[in-house]
Amino acid sequence: MVDSSDFAGVISGLKSWQNSICAGVSSYEDGVKFTVDKWHSKLGQGESRVLERGAIFESAGVNFSHVSGNNLPAAALPGRSELAGKPYFAAGVSTVLHPRNPFIPTAHANLRIFVVAPDSRRPIWWFGGGYDLTPYYGFIDDCVLWHKNAKLVCDRYGEHVYDDFKKNCDDYFYLKHRDEHRGIGGLFFDNLNTWGFDNCADFVREVASSFTRSYFTIVSGRRKIPYSAAQRDFQAYRRGRYVEFNLLYDRGTKFGLDSGGRTESILMSLPPTVSWRYNWQAEVGTAEHELYSRFLQPQDWVGLLADA
Amino acid sequence: MVDSSDFAGVISGLKSWQNSICAGVSSYEDGVKFTVDKWHSKLGQGESRVLERGAIFESAGVNFSHVSGNNLPAAALPGRSELAGKPYFAAGVSTVLHPRNPFIPTAHANLRIFVVAPDSRRPIWWFGGGYDLTPYYGFIDDCVLWHKNAKLVCDRYGEHVYDDFKKNCDDYFYLKHRDEHRGIGGLFFDNLNTWGFDNCADFVREVASSFTRSYFTIVSGRRKIPYSAAQRDFQAYRRGRYVEFNLLYDRGTKFGLDSGGRTESILMSLPPTVSWRYNWQAEVGTAEHELYSRFLQPQDWVGLLADA
Repeated sequence: MVDSSDFAGVISGLKSWQNSICAGVSSYEDGVKFTVDKWHSKLGQGESRVLERGAIFESAGVNFSHVSGNNLPAAALPGRSELAGKPYFAAGVSTVLHPRNPFIPTAHANLRIFVVAPDSRRPIWWFGGGYDLTPYYGFIDDCVLWHKNAKLVCDRYGEHVYDDFKKNCDDYFYLKHRDEHRGIGGLFFDNLNTWGFDNCADFVREVASSFTRSYFTIVSGRRKIPYSAAQRDFQAYRRGRYVEFNLLYDRGTKFGLDSGGRTESILMSLPPTVSWRYNWQAEVGTAEHELYSRFLQPQDWVGLLADA
Repeated sequence: MVDSSDFAGVISGLKSWQNSICAGVSSYEDGVKFTVDKWHSKLGQGESRVLERGAIFESAGVNFSHVSGNNLPAAALPGRSELAGKPYFAAGVSTVLHPRNPFIPTAHANLRIFVVAPDSRRPIWWFGGGYDLTPYYGFIDDCVLWHKNAKLVCDRYGEHVYDDFKKNCDDYFYLKHRDEHRGIGGLFFDNLNTWGFDNCADFVREVASSFTRSYFTIVSGRRKIPYSAAQRDFQAYRRGRYVEFNLLYDRGTKFGLDSGGRTESILMSLPPTVSWRYNWQAEVGTAEHELYSRFLQPQDWVGLLADA
């Protein structure tokens, strides 16, 4: 086993982030509390926190997990076959927040550290993760805020960091079978280790706190907008795309399920109510159509601010 | 190209089956009609028929497709790499019927012919497909009827045909990540060509008509049972398993989407309204629990009749 105590600061940072996301959600929920499930499996342990049927959050899942072993499966790390069979550990927090009001976007974030110990050498570590936002009804201001805060964090670590990580995110959250992006993106990175450990750990901490800050600002701004049954229907329809992405493409979901991960923790990302309709198309000129034509198109959101 | 006119009888049989399934659905629907979408793509052509928001059928999809090419993709036929790159055609009908009343099961069926022409030799053909039933609330009588009719068709073609094709079905419609079967099974076969062309074509025709007969008998028997909002909720929850199976495991769905098939025709199999709840468990002693403990367990349904 790798001695994860060398990475205790990172792990406790991940747990703090789990706490602050849950605190953010709970601040909007009077009557409903998080269910906390601590689990142990042959792979490790974790804590799944789920809040359902809240006033603002129809479902909110915030999972911490910490798994380790003496024999890293080759499938865990495509392209790094030299590390297969070595001792490893991985720790991460993953969250998906599905609000009830269709004017509040769904948010997803995930941050993790992966450590592998090759024979008699110092452990190899890297960070991965990111966050992305999935609106049902788009607001330019929210998109700009989301990306501006992401860029502020990235810019301290290099000139191209935001552009690179934003592009990764746009490329990853893409439904090929529909030629559609899942949302308006954000940041996505993997194999992050080139800045030295302390800088990388700081970056991940700042990404974490920018997620919480940006998202709850958006929630706060949109939560009182009245909505109709038809708008809820559109939200349920669009949530179908979330399900399609997570079950067809998401590497974390597939790897988790294939490797015997805890099904209920992995699938807490799926939305609470969803619908499919055959060949449904939004009418040109509607807000529903604008979601596709204006918002689900990767673009320079921060530049919009500069132009404004 | 393979000359599909040699197989015109099979193709017209498939189209007749599409008609009879649609006629069966329509016989329950006064006000709502099938939408008929004829499509053409680089792969071929087809006709998707979908009925939504009916009185009895919340959604019903019945698709015919006929695709062909001069260069069979290797991925189309795992284990038969000698046929890659050859001219081929495939024709089939696929249907998924999602009733509104949770006491009526969801039904799925699919029958197809695949023909490949190796160089200067007679075409190689085979049939594949089958049907399976997915109850929300189980009725022993329906399970026995479903399997008894399947066995009656199979028994004329050999002593072990039903057992083999039933086992294929139980094995295939299985959600590994939940250690759960999707429903009560039925028949499933592939690479069927050992009985001679005429016998195989007859078998497929009889499988087709037994599906229609069995399913509409069950619909007719259950459609007037009153149901509660809680029972509809359970149906929506269980439909989540249908989505999980189709997007995570179903080979037809994956191959169709990967190969650039028509997304809306492929995903018409997904249920109209679905929900996910975290770690939900049915209480022992309820009908919901009995679905898992009594019905989603592969068993000798026809033997139950003999014992009764």
